[in-house]
Amino acid sequence: MSEKQEGAVPHLAAEEFRQLGYRMVDWIAGYWDRLESFPVRAPVAPGDVAARLPPHPPEQGLDGEKGWEAVFQDLEQVVLPGTTHWQSPSFFGYFPANVSGPAVLGELLSAGLGVQGMLWSTGPACTELEARVMDWLVELLGLPASFLSTSPTGGGVIQGSASEATLVAMVAARARIRRMSPGDAPLVAYASTQVHSSLLKAAMLCGVARDASDTTHVRTIATDATYGLNPEALERAITEDLAAGKRPFFVCATLGTTSSGAVDRLGPIGEVLARTGVTASGGWLHVDAAWAGAALVCPEFREGLAGMEAVDSFCFDPHKWLLTNFDCDAFFTRDRGALLEALSVMPEYLRNTASASGSVTDYRDWQVPLGRRFRALKLWLVLRHYGRQGLQAYIREHVRLAQRFVGWVAQDARFELAVPRSLALVCFRLAARPAEASAATDARNRALLERLNATGEVFLSHTVLPGVGERPTRYVLRMAIGGTRTQEGHVRACWELLQRLASE
Amino acid sequence: MSEKQEGAVPHLAAEEFRQLGYRMVDWIAGYWDRLESFPVRAPVAPGDVAARLPPHPPEQGLDGEKGWEAVFQDLEQVVLPGTTHWQSPSFFGYFPANVSGPAVLGELLSAGLGVQGMLWSTGPACTELEARVMDWLVELLGLPASFLSTSPTGGGVIQGSASEATLVAMVAARARIRRMSPGDAPLVAYASTQVHSSLLKAAMLCGVARDASDTTHVRTIATDATYGLNPEALERAITEDLAAGKRPFFVCATLGTTSSGAVDRLGPIGEVLARTGVTASGGWLHVDAAWAGAALVCPEFREGLAGMEAVDSFCFDPHKWLLTNFDCDAFFTRDRGALLEALSVMPEYLRNTASASGSVTDYRDWQVPLGRRFRALKLWLVLRHYGRQGLQAYIREHVRLAQRFVGWVAQDARFELAVPRSLALVCFRLAARPAEASAATDARNRALLERLNATGEVFLSHTVLPGVGERPTRYVLRMAIGGTRTQEGHVRACWELLQRLASE
Repeated sequence: MSEKQEGAVPHLAAEEFRQLGYRMVDWIAGYWDRLESFPVRAPVAPGDVAARLPPHPPEQGLDGEKGWEAVFQDLEQVVLPGTTHWQSPSFFGYFPANVSGPAVLGELLSAGLGVQGMLWSTGPACTELEARVMDWLVELLGLPASFLSTSPTGGGVIQGSASEATLVAMVAARARIRRMSPGDAPLVAYASTQVHSSLLKAAMLCGVARDASDTTHVRTIATDATYGLNPEALERAITEDLAAGKRPFFVCATLGTTSSGAVDRLGPIGEVLARTGVTASGGWLHVDAAWAGAALVCPEFREGLAGMEAVDSFCFDPHKWLLTNFDCDAFFTRDRGALLEALSVMPEYLRNTASASGSVTDYRDWQVPLGRRFRALKLWLVLRHYGRQGLQAYIREHVRLAQRFVGWVAQDARFELAVPRSLALVCFRLAARPAEASAATDARNRALLERLNATGEVFLSHTVLPGVGERPTRYVLRMAIGGTRTQEGHVRACWELLQRLASE
Repeated sequence: MSEKQEGAVPHLAAEEFRQLGYRMVDWIAGYWDRLESFPVRAPVAPGDVAARLPPHPPEQGLDGEKGWEAVFQDLEQVVLPGTTHWQSPSFFGYFPANVSGPAVLGELLSAGLGVQGMLWSTGPACTELEARVMDWLVELLGLPASFLSTSPTGGGVIQGSASEATLVAMVAARARIRRMSPGDAPLVAYASTQVHSSLLKAAMLCGVARDASDTTHVRTIATDATYGLNPEALERAITEDLAAGKRPFFVCATLGTTSSGAVDRLGPIGEVLARTGVTASGGWLHVDAAWAGAALVCPEFREGLAGMEAVDSFCFDPHKWLLTNFDCDAFFTRDRGALLEALSVMPEYLRNTASASGSVTDYRDWQVPLGRRFRALKLWLVLRHYGRQGLQAYIREHVRLAQRFVGWVAQDARFELAVPRSLALVCFRLAARPAEASAATDARNRALLERLNATGEVFLSHTVLPGVGERPTRYVLRMAIGGTRTQEGHVRACWELLQRLASE
């Protein structure tokens, strides 16, 4: 194995790869078993990891399997101590970033096959399996049939992230409105104040917004008391802009905001777009259900879908709460032609008979990059392994745990819910003491979160919810339940820790 | 293992994951061993793969390990027959898409860890290891020290693809020129006629180009006889645009074009930008070395780096020819501030002490998406496993094989080189017969390529090179050597097949 020739390329031999592969599989399984033994948040300071890494690249490679001992040592001594453990069952921060066995096997498979699926012809299975599993998702989530790849003008595609999905939707919307309503009037995009930061980033990337403070071309709309977009405020803004000679072209509605899980009501939004003539002029309604979309596998959580008939595109992240490793954003549109219009460039070196025939999908024209790996495999394996029933059981269990948590909060007068529970996200806080200034309440909550996370036993993140009416702006803690391995004991332990710290 | 409870979530048990993991590792190793037994190009028609997939998603999941038998069967019966085998040692199309054992292990590891490295604080090791391996690449490739993460204003980051790198560079350039040269003059980007399609796509995405036919804001510049950008033509275009009140803001130079491996000379381009005042007004020079950049690990292939001192950003794809699975584009800039200016949006729910301190890198602000997986692991394992010497040996071997191929072409009067060999890319064709019309020569070459690929024994792609002077436009075959497993026998077999088909 190690009898390397002078000048020979030191590839791993097949048997070396097998042995190291088994060992890596064992290491990962072992890591998952050990997850509760690590501090959830990496207890390192900036530079700590870098200080343990050689400043210069190695001249010589590793000496076969033996040489890899050093790699496995570094995983323990350099990588793990610097890792915030998103897979910990006590990670409740941000939104979950699900990893599951079937998805990891799919990612491994995709890496091994090394297919480049930019064109149908460069990866027929990569393309057709993706179209099929996206169609499966339409059915699993109860989405409109106009999103099916078999529909006349729609289809689904895997994007890297909801940010990319929003960008792609926005440039498709721009292409469409320019075609349907020519002219140079400035374009304006709309979303609630609670929209994800990727909306503004997409507008900055595509040039609709000049910079992060451009509130002329990206208008954020007031919400109601539960932080869903206020349709009347949207209508006022659109009417105002139309009167000023601007072109409203894009509305991003959110099912399950990042801050508090709020849901924008699609029905009334669609009606506003119809009533103001935005729909008729080619305007686009995009739905960002990045996190909450996964819950649509359960019919009882589909209330938010009312009004979907007005929606041009929709995305959600199986890589958040549907057991499929990052990156896997499921993006659907009923107007794939607008995507091609905005994104298709055909250089000679990519021309091929299949593309020229018009009978195939070339997914490169549905996304930002040209290249793409075979990401459908991991989604396929997850959907097959769990099945509809398994996925439903998974979502329902987390929602049940969130309900339990809400119950505990309700029984402890020191705490309060900040907004009604949204699926498995609970926004809560230490309640204001009598006559306490709101800044003081915020400070106590901020301190509680810092002490909580410093224990290393759990990790939560926070948000700030804007004031509504008499209610001041509030700093709140977010308990996002949804880890692959999270069970009732972890949620309960987190609550008991919160109670203990609140007593100190 | 399989005693599933009613309503329980059917996760793979640890031991099931281990066993399936070993099996998947074996399957991949076995696939690599069998690569030469498959037709390189998938012999399927549109719809063939889809026809073998169930139309509806499964209601019930797989019954543990046993259930996965069906998955492994489908890999053989559905996925492989529909796969164009990019990892075949006889795949010579497009550019290589390298997969290697160490990279696959790194991808597996990244999937298992499931870290979300959007912020330093959400993945300190993910961030700091990435910065370090990018610094290693600066050293390995002989790039300017101004690209190091330890330099005052520079640094490197892994992008998903060169397309994303170009987009990020372009929006950074736009932010910078707006700051340095305020005003509303239309922005213009420049590149040679041979630039990759991702330049136009980036301009369409960011709104600099209105559509794919916008030659006002994306100007393609004539080349010299070997298809490198003509600096005089660039200077004329810039001067003309300046005189017309436009703002030249972005030039994309290519080291190793996709068509023919041509190299744009950075020195003269930088001089044009300085002389026309574009540099002083904030203009940006980006270098796309997506494929050829890998060869810079060898000092003898660094001629193209002359003039790098004028370059603002540079990218190359370790996922092409440096043994690191897709996706892994290495992007470097000497002006990271411009990236942050163009891409940074800080919502409350992402605020954290480390970011606020300004002492850490948050890579989300260097890229299109918010989320990011731990891609540095695979690059780290590749650089460690092979070492500088191993990488050099790898590149040199492919260049040697390309030289051999050129030698054979030179000895067969029926064939000719279309342009001088560029590293391991050989553009060649059946030579024109006496008095043959150029369209007829093209047609013979097109037919040859189709017959060649139809054999399934090899796969090559083509390009069309524009006419220069008296020379007509030419359809040419591209022999891109660079597969992980490609050896002299594969190149020779391809040549012998070409000779045989040319005789028929």
